[in-house]
Amino acid sequence: MRVSGYAASSATSALTPFSFERRKSRPDDVVIDILFCGVCHTDLHLARNHGSFTIYPIVPGHEIIGTVRQVGEKVGRFKAGDMVGVGCMVDSCQHCQPCQTGWEQDCTEGATFTYNSTDRHDGAVTYGGYSDSIVVRDKFVVSIPAGLDPAGAAPLLCAGITTWSPLHRWKVGPGSRVAVIGLGGLGHMALKLAKARGASVTLFTRSGGKEKDAFRLGADHVVLSSDPAHMTAVAGRYDLIIDTVPYDHDINPYMPTLALEGVLVLVGYMGPLSTPVNAGGVVRGRRAISGSFIGGVGETQQMLDFCGQHGIVSDVEVIPIQQINQAYERMLKSDVKYRFVIDMASLKS
Amino acid sequence: MRVSGYAASSATSALTPFSFERRKSRPDDVVIDILFCGVCHTDLHLARNHGSFTIYPIVPGHEIIGTVRQVGEKVGRFKAGDMVGVGCMVDSCQHCQPCQTGWEQDCTEGATFTYNSTDRHDGAVTYGGYSDSIVVRDKFVVSIPAGLDPAGAAPLLCAGITTWSPLHRWKVGPGSRVAVIGLGGLGHMALKLAKARGASVTLFTRSGGKEKDAFRLGADHVVLSSDPAHMTAVAGRYDLIIDTVPYDHDINPYMPTLALEGVLVLVGYMGPLSTPVNAGGVVRGRRAISGSFIGGVGETQQMLDFCGQHGIVSDVEVIPIQQINQAYERMLKSDVKYRFVIDMASLKS
Ligand SMILES: [Zn+2]
Ligand SMILES: [Zn+2]
Ligand SMILES: [Zn+2]
Ligand SMILES: [Zn+2]
Repeated sequence: MRVSGYAASSATSALTPFSFERRKSRPDDVVIDILFCGVCHTDLHLARNHGSFTIYPIVPGHEIIGTVRQVGEKVGRFKAGDMVGVGCMVDSCQHCQPCQTGWEQDCTEGATFTYNSTDRHDGAVTYGGYSDSIVVRDKFVVSIPAGLDPAGAAPLLCAGITTWSPLHRWKVGPGSRVAVIGLGGLGHMALKLAKARGASVTLFTRSGGKEKDAFRLGADHVVLSSDPAHMTAVAGRYDLIIDTVPYDHDINPYMPTLALEGVLVLVGYMGPLSTPVNAGGVVRGRRAISGSFIGGVGETQQMLDFCGQHGIVSDVEVIPIQQINQAYERMLKSDVKYRFVIDMASLKS
Repeated sequence: MRVSGYAASSATSALTPFSFERRKSRPDDVVIDILFCGVCHTDLHLARNHGSFTIYPIVPGHEIIGTVRQVGEKVGRFKAGDMVGVGCMVDSCQHCQPCQTGWEQDCTEGATFTYNSTDRHDGAVTYGGYSDSIVVRDKFVVSIPAGLDPAGAAPLLCAGITTWSPLHRWKVGPGSRVAVIGLGGLGHMALKLAKARGASVTLFTRSGGKEKDAFRLGADHVVLSSDPAHMTAVAGRYDLIIDTVPYDHDINPYMPTLALEGVLVLVGYMGPLSTPVNAGGVVRGRRAISGSFIGGVGETQQMLDFCGQHGIVSDVEVIPIQQINQAYERMLKSDVKYRFVIDMASLKS
């Protein structure tokens, strides 16, 4: 099955048109015509080999929305024409304990990721959503609730689930106090989702000027984290802080703003925290530093159903795929509110 | 009320005999004749002003076991002759939310500590358990179950509750896998308590030679943390790691040994962790780094009752108070198995 897409052929190449083969559909596969694909920071990092494990050519994209073209004979959950989504994973072992628990992202044999990964059946490299169609195992396909704007729904598949998962794990609801650090693709979804779950929501920001947007997105309060007086005023306040900062930063100033037994959860950064973490920040008040990485498939469906009920989508700027390289440059300057989404119809132009 | 004790008069002075006044007993006070007092690392640190907030003269000691001499008119829980204990706190506001929850250590107005603190009623400096008697508000006095060796029970009031509290918070029981880092006063109590709660218990140690003691104290396994092969063999294993190390250290090697959603809890150190903490260590597997600081009064009584049922006390070396300065020197070399306890009868000799 021949498909069209965009790929990078080296760490320094722009993404350019790329034609490639998708595998033949297996009995448990869903063939999807892609309508929209969100543009995640991970796409940029892997296209440019920032993690030194990119396999070229790479076709990025793991925030995929499309319609079902056809399904394999063993697929009962979907039929042609259904609006569906695919996120960061396309397969896992399905029998280990994490998989059985619904934590496919923690599959002990390693999940198969949507791109730059290896298909666990035929050994081929996986190619992502910057393309006109994709073939995905049915268990990793989710339903998009009717009524959700498909372009705005695309970022729910990564930015949405990444921020939903900790809100769900720590049972955020009415009465909860949640703070969000950083107002980007992840941060703006965290505000929307926390608010819709009934929490009182605060945005921490290092610079002014974000109040209007923050309030519109669901924040009840905005706290200037660079101002010690502001930070002191919110000491002991938050049950959960969702830290979306995607680079090395100092988490110590946020710890005293947690309530007793409160948790700061890192969702945007996996590297070393070079400013020494103060052990007193967790010993005092039995606070915790935790982390979270995307979410399971069942949890993703749960989040999508919730978004359907509450009419929640991402704030997006829709672009034709021909602008993907400029979009990457703008992302590096945080010049997007709050997610680029590729209109895949542009592939044909 | 004139009492005898031992005090340090400066950061560089040895502890020497010291005679001082205890306050007049209030209606809710218990007057206690001290039999034994454990020697905690905090005693040494504060005697030598390591935290730069010591008020001299200082009478250390917050692992106190004694018998009730008399009680105030409002005290109903105790009577003369009862065997009782006093730990790290002697008072708190009693009306804030943490106090109401049983978390007096987190009192929003600040708990009154057993020594080097300020009495919240008369403003006097508090003096600890290295003395023949003490006057304590009844709510901060706990009952010592019959049958427990009083010298061995003394360290339960600090080392015991400090390690019990995380075991209790994270509901450690049969089926739990717990690891303990460090085999000192805290570590040896963590082994005993985790084992008695029914967990499978591992000791992490950097050097060999501790196996025999570890097994005797309740460990099922000993893992050499300096050996990468040993660490790899226990990847993903522990629900809870109790880190009792009292100084700056690298926690990163322990994180992958936690199970999914497992927690490493710091109980021995409050300073900066100078080796950069890897965010990936918590993002992967949704693990957490937390901390814990002593425990509430109700929780302390719960722990003592459990120790009474299971016959658990600390392994102690009983010393006369005249040897306290040598004991401090030996503690600095970790030359004690596992806690010094002062026999207060020696004060009269
Ligand atoms: Zn992503
Ligand atoms: Zn699996
Ligand atoms: Zn202590
Ligand atoms: Zn209080």
